[in-house]
Amino acid sequence: MQTLVPFDPTNPNTRLSALLSEDERRAFATEMLSDVLDAVRRAGGEPVVLASAPLDGDVDAPVTVDDRPLSVAVNDALAALPAAVVMADLALATPEAVQRLYDAGGDVVVAPGRGGGTNALVVRHRDFDVDYHGVSFRDHLAAADAAGAAVETVDSFRLAVDIDEPTDLLDVLVHGNRGAADWLRDAGFRVAVDDGTPTVVRE
Amino acid sequence: MQTLVPFDPTNPNTRLSALLSEDERRAFATEMLSDVLDAVRRAGGEPVVLASAPLDGDVDAPVTVDDRPLSVAVNDALAALPAAVVMADLALATPEAVQRLYDAGGDVVVAPGRGGGTNALVVRHRDFDVDYHGVSFRDHLAAADAAGAAVETVDSFRLAVDIDEPTDLLDVLVHGNRGAADWLRDAGFRVAVDDGTPTVVRE
Repeated sequence: MQTLVPFDPTNPNTRLSALLSEDERRAFATEMLSDVLDAVRRAGGEPVVLASAPLDGDVDAPVTVDDRPLSVAVNDALAALPAAVVMADLALATPEAVQRLYDAGGDVVVAPGRGGGTNALVVRHRDFDVDYHGVSFRDHLAAADAAGAAVETVDSFRLAVDIDEPTDLLDVLVHGNRGAADWLRDAGFRVAVDDGTPTVVRE
Repeated sequence: MQTLVPFDPTNPNTRLSALLSEDERRAFATEMLSDVLDAVRRAGGEPVVLASAPLDGDVDAPVTVDDRPLSVAVNDALAALPAAVVMADLALATPEAVQRLYDAGGDVVVAPGRGGGTNALVVRHRDFDVDYHGVSFRDHLAAADAAGAAVETVDSFRLAVDIDEPTDLLDVLVHGNRGAADWLRDAGFRVAVDDGTPTVVRE
């Protein structure tokens, strides 16, 4: 299935600024993107990067550049259905988790993210539009309903964790075993235990 | 399957103190416990509350009181196998999610929580002990391996979200549809959108 992977190469993961320099955030974001593209491909998907600006380096997928707001760009790119949308910062996404997304029935399939977000979607109904503003998980269920589209959700931890806060790096270090986790380890990040509670330190 | 639900009735959810009084935290924790017991029962499990102190009110399950540290109390209670352990603050847990836990093969089944934790377990191997201290997800995989137990993980958002931080309440309000979510709504909590980002407010 064609799978859009929206990506902002300009100033990614600003909420990680306390831990990573701008260059490091760009490198880490590119590693996460590569991991997601790889998971999509191994699940049998055909990834297309939907970038908000031209990329600096190479990635292993076609790249469409569209500098309009995310929802506008995604809806335009969803012309040919079925198609999926998978966020570029799902550093825990495995081929198995993406496969569950593809395998779910329903005209619209939604995988929630933390905090009311939508981290992955499958769209098989032409009257459904995405809107990533606000409580998008709830809004996507309502939009599917309004379009008369049967909706299904995918209950996946690996699709629910998007990496944008410092505490999210702990999940990458514990559960990640590909490029983004390796990048963090090479950059000196480790899991430490402080009074019984896991935490992230940089050596 | 017998399913232990560890519960601390004395001073639960201290990290919600900024939003809830001590009485409110106790009431909210009891609602979450009831939701978890209900989900376990609907999935065909037989819940047993493993409480660190006597409970004030009634709950719809047998209660074992054990004031020793959590891991000690759980290991002792895991005498008769197979058995499961499901945390009491999994306010998003559905019968379907608990069913996936029960249905997973493996001598040891682990459902991760955020931050390296273990939110739910099935134990079918008598040489496996729990240890909730530190990076318990990783430690449980290693302990299963050391015991020669086949391990399986359950990839579930609904089992991964334990409620202890203020931001977790957003997930309860968006995804919960039972007692704990109702309790929050009755207490005046609502989802608001602030500059495109969902947030929790109290009216």
